[in-house]
Amino acid sequence: MGPCLSTAEFSNTQHSPSMARLREVMPKTMSRIRDFCIPVNGYFPPAELLAELSDELPQILKYYPTTAADLTGRLSVLVGIDERFLVLGNGSTELISWIDELLVSDTLAIPVPTFSRWTDDPKIRGVKVATYQRREANDFRLDPAEYVDFVLSSGARCAVLCNPNNPTGAFMPLEEIYWVLERLSGLDLVVIDESFIDFSDEASVPTVACAVTKVSNLLVLKSLGKNYGLHGVRLGYAITSPERARFLRQRIPYWNLNGISESLLKRLPRYLSLYEAGRRKTVLDSRAFEAELRRIPGLTVYPSRANFVYVKAPSFISGTELRDRLLNERGLLVRECGNKEGSSSQFLRIAARPPEERGVLVEAMQEIFASASPKRALVVD
Amino acid sequence: MGPCLSTAEFSNTQHSPSMARLREVMPKTMSRIRDFCIPVNGYFPPAELLAELSDELPQILKYYPTTAADLTGRLSVLVGIDERFLVLGNGSTELISWIDELLVSDTLAIPVPTFSRWTDDPKIRGVKVATYQRREANDFRLDPAEYVDFVLSSGARCAVLCNPNNPTGAFMPLEEIYWVLERLSGLDLVVIDESFIDFSDEASVPTVACAVTKVSNLLVLKSLGKNYGLHGVRLGYAITSPERARFLRQRIPYWNLNGISESLLKRLPRYLSLYEAGRRKTVLDSRAFEAELRRIPGLTVYPSRANFVYVKAPSFISGTELRDRLLNERGLLVRECGNKEGSSSQFLRIAARPPEERGVLVEAMQEIFASASPKRALVVD
Repeated sequence: MGPCLSTAEFSNTQHSPSMARLREVMPKTMSRIRDFCIPVNGYFPPAELLAELSDELPQILKYYPTTAADLTGRLSVLVGIDERFLVLGNGSTELISWIDELLVSDTLAIPVPTFSRWTDDPKIRGVKVATYQRREANDFRLDPAEYVDFVLSSGARCAVLCNPNNPTGAFMPLEEIYWVLERLSGLDLVVIDESFIDFSDEASVPTVACAVTKVSNLLVLKSLGKNYGLHGVRLGYAITSPERARFLRQRIPYWNLNGISESLLKRLPRYLSLYEAGRRKTVLDSRAFEAELRRIPGLTVYPSRANFVYVKAPSFISGTELRDRLLNERGLLVRECGNKEGSSSQFLRIAARPPEERGVLVEAMQEIFASASPKRALVVD
Repeated sequence: MGPCLSTAEFSNTQHSPSMARLREVMPKTMSRIRDFCIPVNGYFPPAELLAELSDELPQILKYYPTTAADLTGRLSVLVGIDERFLVLGNGSTELISWIDELLVSDTLAIPVPTFSRWTDDPKIRGVKVATYQRREANDFRLDPAEYVDFVLSSGARCAVLCNPNNPTGAFMPLEEIYWVLERLSGLDLVVIDESFIDFSDEASVPTVACAVTKVSNLLVLKSLGKNYGLHGVRLGYAITSPERARFLRQRIPYWNLNGISESLLKRLPRYLSLYEAGRRKTVLDSRAFEAELRRIPGLTVYPSRANFVYVKAPSFISGTELRDRLLNERGLLVRECGNKEGSSSQFLRIAARPPEERGVLVEAMQEIFASASPKRALVVD
């Protein structure tokens, strides 16, 4: 089944190796891979948009892009939020770095496991990270009161909450988020990272963004690349009070957006209804995908409100072995979560894929579980 | 000659408005514009490279790029410098922001006029900027001993020098740079910004980069986008001691490069000889362009070692009027330098263009000067 993967590629990084890197190391395997690692919106971008960008590419590459400050008006049109509240970033991770550098001092409180940039980046800058362990027994969902108690007793001046959470998919409803915000109003900063919120509900997007007009210590972080299936473009934004937004806009690099990002901001408003249709389909696909995973004997599946599902491998096979066998024997790439604080190698994050590809993964897992321990497979936890 | 330009577009920014912005505001004029504003390498990229990028675009946009730390090896192959000394940035301006934020405290010393990011960005962060006025009488060239005296007496712990300088084109020879570095060895940091050095000499590139192995407080800043005629891609790098490089790599956003940058780093090594040929042609074009500008009566031309020329309009016409008339009457875009500290509206930066386009600009300027003040044109300074 092609060259075998060395797990070194995975242990070299706190995140997953990029597809470009994997294609370089194992070109034969990767040519036929199915990616259950990176959560995407499989219904975007349409070929027409890609063709427009491709046509414009020589122009895009030749000239300096417009500054982020000047592009904020375009973002405002796209997302329907007054530009005074907006800060454009070269991906949401650029904003995380600058938030940690400029707005967080001493201690940051965050539930784990979560997006590793939020645990690793502050530490690099000498900020302590107070972690609250999400409980497996509670399907990794947070109890709002417990979380508030934890934050307040940690002494942190900044609290971060990813909603829905990555990698667990656990979701906190809007009314609970409001309850938490009220109790944390004495903090300097509360970040709600909504990078995956577009895929949490079919009917509407349960974002807390509109609260920034009233809650002065709130900053909502959003991803555009992820939503629009354009991870390589680097485009994210923050929504926060006009004062904090201005402070950040002034200090974040002046030309942080590339020409493709600029062109996209200009073009996306024409594709909003197509995006909305794809967003809804992705939500439905994701929930159906989760239901399908529950059919696999031995696999523990936690309720998700994102376009990925957090699962636990049965005790007779390690998550790393499962990941390596899925990749090398079946060409199926999943995210093993052993390098995430508050997780372990037994846990994996599996990105939802369109209906026609679900069966392949389910079948592969079932067969690997059966072959890994045919006897013990009958007494899975 | 098409819709007239409001100078508001130019006064809204510390830099030039982007071409995308100008195309939006004045589409008719811009459709036939010749750009003497942005200094470029007109011989790169070749159509073949653009076609490769265009073919790969769907892949590039769909997947997360590799992290900058992992791409440093590719940069090392491209530029022939050990990767321990390298830091990749989302354009050299991202590196300026992080250098100012992380490495500069209290005061930064810099000769003016110069690249505005180096004067504006530190101030935003509360860093004082001690400016040394380059003297017109000396063609804006620095006297090394005077510059060293200025830096040492300013009390700054960080000194910055753009070589060749933007916008003046003034150049400091390598032996003088070494002399300055030796005398500034007690500072925390000396930045030599070599963003335009590839176009300063036909035979070889007089970079001070190799000195980073011996001069521990040196950081050399380079631009890749500018060199390769790919300003929209956002790609630059720093060369500095392994300790400082590591410090910066850890703190700069984890995924700061976009997919196009990653693809370029992979593809550029195959185009090095083509790049070198274009680089040499650009140097020759630039010197011939400067000679041509000297033919214009009334225009003061300062010696340049970059792919642009700094000039002074005759006293009977302001630089802003000259810029506006060149654009609105002739479709020729130049950079008026009134918003640069240490410059004034009388000065303009004119980017070198290929031989066949020189005549248009020279003729236009001659005609505008003649019509602006036919009588006084005989007694220009």
